[in-house]
Amino acid sequence: MREFIPPATRFVDLPDGFPMKRGGTLHGARIGYETYGRSNGARDVILILTGLSADAHPASHPDDPSPGWWEAMLGPGKPIDTDRWQVICINSLGSCKGSTGPASTDPGTGEPYRLDFPDLTVEDIADAAAYTVRALGIERVDCVIGASMGGMSALALLARHPGIARNHINISGAVHSLPFSIAIRSLQREAIRCDPHWNQGRYHAERYPQRGMLTARKLGIATYRSAQEWEDRFGRARLSTERRTGKELFGLEFEVESYLEFHARRFLHEFDPNSYLYLSHSIDQFDLGECCGSTPREALSWLRLEKALVLGVETDILFPLKQQQQIAEGLRAGGTDVQFVPLESPQGHDAFLVDIDRFGPPIAKFLSSS
Amino acid sequence: MREFIPPATRFVDLPDGFPMKRGGTLHGARIGYETYGRSNGARDVILILTGLSADAHPASHPDDPSPGWWEAMLGPGKPIDTDRWQVICINSLGSCKGSTGPASTDPGTGEPYRLDFPDLTVEDIADAAAYTVRALGIERVDCVIGASMGGMSALALLARHPGIARNHINISGAVHSLPFSIAIRSLQREAIRCDPHWNQGRYHAERYPQRGMLTARKLGIATYRSAQEWEDRFGRARLSTERRTGKELFGLEFEVESYLEFHARRFLHEFDPNSYLYLSHSIDQFDLGECCGSTPREALSWLRLEKALVLGVETDILFPLKQQQQIAEGLRAGGTDVQFVPLESPQGHDAFLVDIDRFGPPIAKFLSSS
Repeated sequence: MREFIPPATRFVDLPDGFPMKRGGTLHGARIGYETYGRSNGARDVILILTGLSADAHPASHPDDPSPGWWEAMLGPGKPIDTDRWQVICINSLGSCKGSTGPASTDPGTGEPYRLDFPDLTVEDIADAAAYTVRALGIERVDCVIGASMGGMSALALLARHPGIARNHINISGAVHSLPFSIAIRSLQREAIRCDPHWNQGRYHAERYPQRGMLTARKLGIATYRSAQEWEDRFGRARLSTERRTGKELFGLEFEVESYLEFHARRFLHEFDPNSYLYLSHSIDQFDLGECCGSTPREALSWLRLEKALVLGVETDILFPLKQQQQIAEGLRAGGTDVQFVPLESPQGHDAFLVDIDRFGPPIAKFLSSS
Repeated sequence: MREFIPPATRFVDLPDGFPMKRGGTLHGARIGYETYGRSNGARDVILILTGLSADAHPASHPDDPSPGWWEAMLGPGKPIDTDRWQVICINSLGSCKGSTGPASTDPGTGEPYRLDFPDLTVEDIADAAAYTVRALGIERVDCVIGASMGGMSALALLARHPGIARNHINISGAVHSLPFSIAIRSLQREAIRCDPHWNQGRYHAERYPQRGMLTARKLGIATYRSAQEWEDRFGRARLSTERRTGKELFGLEFEVESYLEFHARRFLHEFDPNSYLYLSHSIDQFDLGECCGSTPREALSWLRLEKALVLGVETDILFPLKQQQQIAEGLRAGGTDVQFVPLESPQGHDAFLVDIDRFGPPIAKFLSSS
């Protein structure tokens, strides 16, 4: 198992016997995080909870100048302005980018957990994030930002740890998954599980479940973006003959196929397949209503926030815009001062990563008014 | 290789040395078809060209009382009224439901063609259909109906065989595939090709590429329908404990996952994986503009039709509604009297198979005015 931990990532040890919601406890577990900007008291802290595959390195850092996954969004003078805020970004529990997950060593056996890792829930991710923040001496953050799966983690955090944040930015998030996105993720997991090299989680580096991971990632990419974006970018452009791989009848022929292949291959060997399964599964399982023993709407209305910004994208087919509208309405019903901003990005669910022109201004404005 | 040919399917032999557009010829090939209703001259004939996986048995038949894939649409007194029309439904060249395809025996070797079948195009399917119609003594049909891939085959037929039909009904069709649907089909083919049991097409019945076919079919089902339909049908309903398959962490848990599994398993062993690859690939390759050495719009305007009905569905993500609008506008530009009817079916691309309440009336009305 290769290590995927960015150099600026630091660690907080979780308490021994950290309890998992669906059963089991973790011993010797830790959470990876990075901090950005100056620290001058808890009031000025922004907490970022991430999507499924992200690490704790959203932007270049004094200890790690490599660009992060939100490079254009976070830094001095950027929408999340590290001249003003101290920013903490947390790698989710269960991931493989610094926090303890299925690829970590089980201290009970000295071997990687693999499928012996306890069933993971979004609530566990939220609890571990809350512990991390408090271990860093922060009782209350000014704003918790969560995008995609991080939007779910943020809602779970707010529900289970009242008072941990004054304000909230929810980006392309949801109170739970709808059946189309469950179906897509179920298929992604199936592709990994059915790769013989996966071997019930006991894969080896030299027999990595490459085919399953490629298919899973391609299906992810196909649904993270939008049909319109691809039509504009690729149309029906074909690969030149020399760029076609293999001579077989069903090899890559269109630019869009090459794009999927290229981006999926970049992801290979950079993410633990078991971690992918656990995180993906936790997204399907999460339900803010169940989490609070109520309906999603009521659970949202119980969250005690001063202000919230809810952003979503019309072309998102995985976390469709009506789910962000649902979050906005539920928070508003509880008395939160909510701005709901639907955006016309063509990039679908992934727009928050790339369409900084649309996402940056409302985030900058919301934070500057805090 | 099991046979999948419905009992009422009859055959027309293609001429020996049938030329394929991308090279190669077929020897001893045949086309499977079924006929419905009375025959009283060519003026009263309706020709049906089908989607990827359909056979030539759209409805119950005196020689085969089993229900067909368009049972509610076709028959005495139904929208396609066999009391009035003689209907011919053709199984596509390259399929495995009666027409010659990769599972058929290559007379040159005495073995199944498998991947030695020549590259298949929608144009070949159209040419074989035209030959079949004429071999049955029909110079001109009153109306050619094509749905999904059949909508492409119908356009190719009209372009390559001017005068073969007076009128046309195009249902959820397109002049070519857009990159999102190419990506989805490319992934389906990849799932089959990467199943070790597929074995470069040389699979055996006892080592059938079941996993690849299941994944391919599930991905098909996931995109043939719409997110809204699934939300209405399944929501987040979970399977009862006794219906969960296996006890493993990532087994089926939601109703939507069980639905995919059930319908994909029904498809298993009923379709030749190689045939699936060839037909799927031909959909991606087809381009009516290329087919005519022009643009799609100009190619459409060249089609000589009296009337056309173009139907599509707002929730279709594979052949989106704007593609049917494109067909309608192109035909209209050429002087065809076109009705374009967008439908609000929640069932996505597959709506024409199940939402007969919406599809039946415009089809019945169009045909009754012919």
